[in-house]
Amino acid sequence: MPVQQKTKQCVSMVRGFTNGRVYTSFAPVRVAEAFAVAGNRIAYVGESRAVEKIVSILGGDVVDLRGRVVLPGFIDAHMHLLSLGIQLNSLDLRGVTSIEELKRVLKEFALRCGVRWVVGRGWDQELFKEKRFPTRWDLDEAVSSKPVYLSRVCGHMAVLNSLAMKILRLEELLNSNVLRDDMGIAIGLVRESAAFTAWERVVSEMPLEDLEKSILDAAKHLASLGVTAVDVAGCSLEELKALLSLWSKGLLPIRVRVHVSLEVFNVLKKTGITFQFGDEFLKVIGVKLFIDGSLGARTAWLSKPYADDPSNTGVCVTPPSTLEAVAREADSMGLQLAVHAIGDKALDAALAVYSRLSRKRHRIEHASLVRDDQLELLEKVKPVLVVQPHFVIGDWWVVGRVSVERVRLVYRFRDFVDRGIPVAFSTDAPVEPANPWETIYAAVARGMYEGVQLYSYTQDQALPANIALHLYTHGSAYALGEEELLGSIDVGKLADFIIIDRDPLEVEPRDLKNVRVLETYVSGKRVWPEP
Amino acid sequence: MPVQQKTKQCVSMVRGFTNGRVYTSFAPVRVAEAFAVAGNRIAYVGESRAVEKIVSILGGDVVDLRGRVVLPGFIDAHMHLLSLGIQLNSLDLRGVTSIEELKRVLKEFALRCGVRWVVGRGWDQELFKEKRFPTRWDLDEAVSSKPVYLSRVCGHMAVLNSLAMKILRLEELLNSNVLRDDMGIAIGLVRESAAFTAWERVVSEMPLEDLEKSILDAAKHLASLGVTAVDVAGCSLEELKALLSLWSKGLLPIRVRVHVSLEVFNVLKKTGITFQFGDEFLKVIGVKLFIDGSLGARTAWLSKPYADDPSNTGVCVTPPSTLEAVAREADSMGLQLAVHAIGDKALDAALAVYSRLSRKRHRIEHASLVRDDQLELLEKVKPVLVVQPHFVIGDWWVVGRVSVERVRLVYRFRDFVDRGIPVAFSTDAPVEPANPWETIYAAVARGMYEGVQLYSYTQDQALPANIALHLYTHGSAYALGEEELLGSIDVGKLADFIIIDRDPLEVEPRDLKNVRVLETYVSGKRVWPEP
Repeated sequence: MPVQQKTKQCVSMVRGFTNGRVYTSFAPVRVAEAFAVAGNRIAYVGESRAVEKIVSILGGDVVDLRGRVVLPGFIDAHMHLLSLGIQLNSLDLRGVTSIEELKRVLKEFALRCGVRWVVGRGWDQELFKEKRFPTRWDLDEAVSSKPVYLSRVCGHMAVLNSLAMKILRLEELLNSNVLRDDMGIAIGLVRESAAFTAWERVVSEMPLEDLEKSILDAAKHLASLGVTAVDVAGCSLEELKALLSLWSKGLLPIRVRVHVSLEVFNVLKKTGITFQFGDEFLKVIGVKLFIDGSLGARTAWLSKPYADDPSNTGVCVTPPSTLEAVAREADSMGLQLAVHAIGDKALDAALAVYSRLSRKRHRIEHASLVRDDQLELLEKVKPVLVVQPHFVIGDWWVVGRVSVERVRLVYRFRDFVDRGIPVAFSTDAPVEPANPWETIYAAVARGMYEGVQLYSYTQDQALPANIALHLYTHGSAYALGEEELLGSIDVGKLADFIIIDRDPLEVEPRDLKNVRVLETYVSGKRVWPEP
Repeated sequence: MPVQQKTKQCVSMVRGFTNGRVYTSFAPVRVAEAFAVAGNRIAYVGESRAVEKIVSILGGDVVDLRGRVVLPGFIDAHMHLLSLGIQLNSLDLRGVTSIEELKRVLKEFALRCGVRWVVGRGWDQELFKEKRFPTRWDLDEAVSSKPVYLSRVCGHMAVLNSLAMKILRLEELLNSNVLRDDMGIAIGLVRESAAFTAWERVVSEMPLEDLEKSILDAAKHLASLGVTAVDVAGCSLEELKALLSLWSKGLLPIRVRVHVSLEVFNVLKKTGITFQFGDEFLKVIGVKLFIDGSLGARTAWLSKPYADDPSNTGVCVTPPSTLEAVAREADSMGLQLAVHAIGDKALDAALAVYSRLSRKRHRIEHASLVRDDQLELLEKVKPVLVVQPHFVIGDWWVVGRVSVERVRLVYRFRDFVDRGIPVAFSTDAPVEPANPWETIYAAVARGMYEGVQLYSYTQDQALPANIALHLYTHGSAYALGEEELLGSIDVGKLADFIIIDRDPLEVEPRDLKNVRVLETYVSGKRVWPEP
């Protein structure tokens, strides 16, 4: 199995951190000079001299921070750990200019990649000097002993080698999206629904240890970026099993909270297992549901048509009655709901259900377009809005989609904060970059430096850096229901913190995305760089 | 260093326990057939079929209990871990009939004992055929390269070898309790205050690794007896440092809560460290104070004289004004007070202070003699009474000490419970046996089978077995302030439980002390037998 037993780190009896600039919280901004960790908890926050005294009396050691900056660890409240890990372990084919080159890099990659399935993405036949699509036979020449799946740059098309076609039984899929030659033989190219079906099958065919490796790689990558806890939104059964296995072996370097998919919820609830189950490292806390699609695909559910598609108001993928039934059931089981609602009409549906539930701290994922009248209801119902500030930059085309008239309703983070509506920060990684500093930067600069059109209309929605940091730490901890244990450097809380290379409250907004994480600690143990 | 790295136990993703008789709590008595553990927590309690389904879906394994009985782990709310460990690592000299035999067994023991200080106890010169006291020179003949301290059966006298005399600088102690020969040379015998001073110096001279070994041996011994958490009452700085070191290495098999001594409190408070510090395995939660002595030594502080010593009402070792000042200070720092009060007059003093504090959950240690009028105040102030039911048997002489008139005021556990006064169980080990079943037995049988005189006067104070078990689990968890995490087998609680060889609610009272613990689990991991 490729995962390795984590070497037992010899921690100190008490570990003190002195002479630093320690931001213990961001709203209000509180700064201390030093703190001490005992076991997995913060034991003291205050002065360096006191920390030195504690260590001299109780035993332990002192880390002199030499003026470096310490923050609570980031909590990414909505992301996809397995997908991020698979992306990290996949071959980047963007910019490849020939099928010959594709074959060469594929062959090399297959030799060094540590997992069974060889996955790549980003090829574009328009760039190939051969001026044709790659086929299964091209791929077979490069790799025939491992299954290969390479998605096109658009993500709506993929090419597979013969072994992959066989394992996934795609030849048997009688569907015009499985492309065939004149003899009726599938040539290895799949598109649209067949591409998505094929991908689902790839993941379900991956051996448990490969899923574990991908998740572990993603978790380590996040630790290196200063993320100490994540929430996996819409966890599949395969991903959950891999997480449980890593957890039981003590290998997870960061905390993971899980919102299972509706499918997994339906399986689990039959067992009678009581939620929330797990511990401080891994906990299944809720269920993820979808109400609508995305602005990008014009499937977000809007109360008025798309500006660039006047006959379309998007789609509702879960009927209100189903939503209500599932929500009531999950709520009564102690699960937190995380409902994907991007359009305002989807938000109407979510709020209608939430306002009738007894528990209060459920979540809305994305909340991209919110009408003024909805702000009042949000203030009253107080769900946590789990937003992805980097969408401001990623969705650079959004003004055209919703029109200038509605653009001020999009990503209105400042309005949420000003009205006291709970907000948590996240990345939706791998959809947006996993680096929290990219997100902090996006929330503060709001696309100003990228010339994003949205900026000119909604610059009043830009957040001060301390508020952005507050929402990525305490705000996300609150979304997880763990603000008593996570999200700040306070006595009794779990010792999750990072050491960084500059002061984020001092740098220019444009430099926020350049902050570097030097060390990451979870439960008082350094998880990055690995000891 | 003699302690070994704990081997990393490979635990299962989810571990189910099925087909058992699982007492999840004792007041009320609740029984389940099965439960599941995920990480360090209980994830499900209910039916075997459900547990099997959970494991089949999420991965993991199932332990078929085959009808065996499971209970929450015992929590010993007041004991002395280091002293117990030293006792476990000491030579038992009871029944030795000659100085020659003493020398022989001492020599053997010194060769195999893994610590620097050779400690023994229980010798009695009356039994020696030589009809004289042993001396340093006798001991030197057996062991000269390691320091030796052997206490007499009464504990008020000890003999040391020359190396020990030198290390402890006892020759320099000009005191009639350091016995000398005609030439004025100390012969190695010390008594009373000199014996106690010598013992304190022995402990302070012990190397950290020997303290660690003793504590670890005690903790493992307790785990083998079904104890999953203890509270160290009156922890010294040496003991605390050894505990912190074991904890930081992940070696503590059971949970330890600490009430530091007043001396340690005075050192720690100067550092500004914030209480309570620590985590689920080790936590410093309070300070231990003494108001009086013991009934055995006639130093417990009584409102009326001792029946067998009419001029004596015992002693008050901490003046009320000092008590009040320390209590207020500790209380304001978030520390829990554990005040040793055996006599009723001492209890008056403790209650007077507690009734003026803002925090409520402070503790009275022992509360051996309680007047009727005090019951009402106890009901009102509601401190936790941390009692040692085995004193009922150990203090077999108590009727003579307090007279028949007051005997019904002694160890009135049933009265406490009936009035809703919080009670926690403990052993004061090594003063009384560390085995919880001895304590449960003593609380239920109340000395009936030993013919203890107290029984005939106070048999109405005997407790039903389920109540005794409740006080040793939930009752003690409440004393620690952790009844939300410990003390029962409920979803979300830490998975601390034991498997035993018979049903304690089915056996005869006399058999309660014969219940055998088969397996002990802490945080869902088996800690005994060691895997």
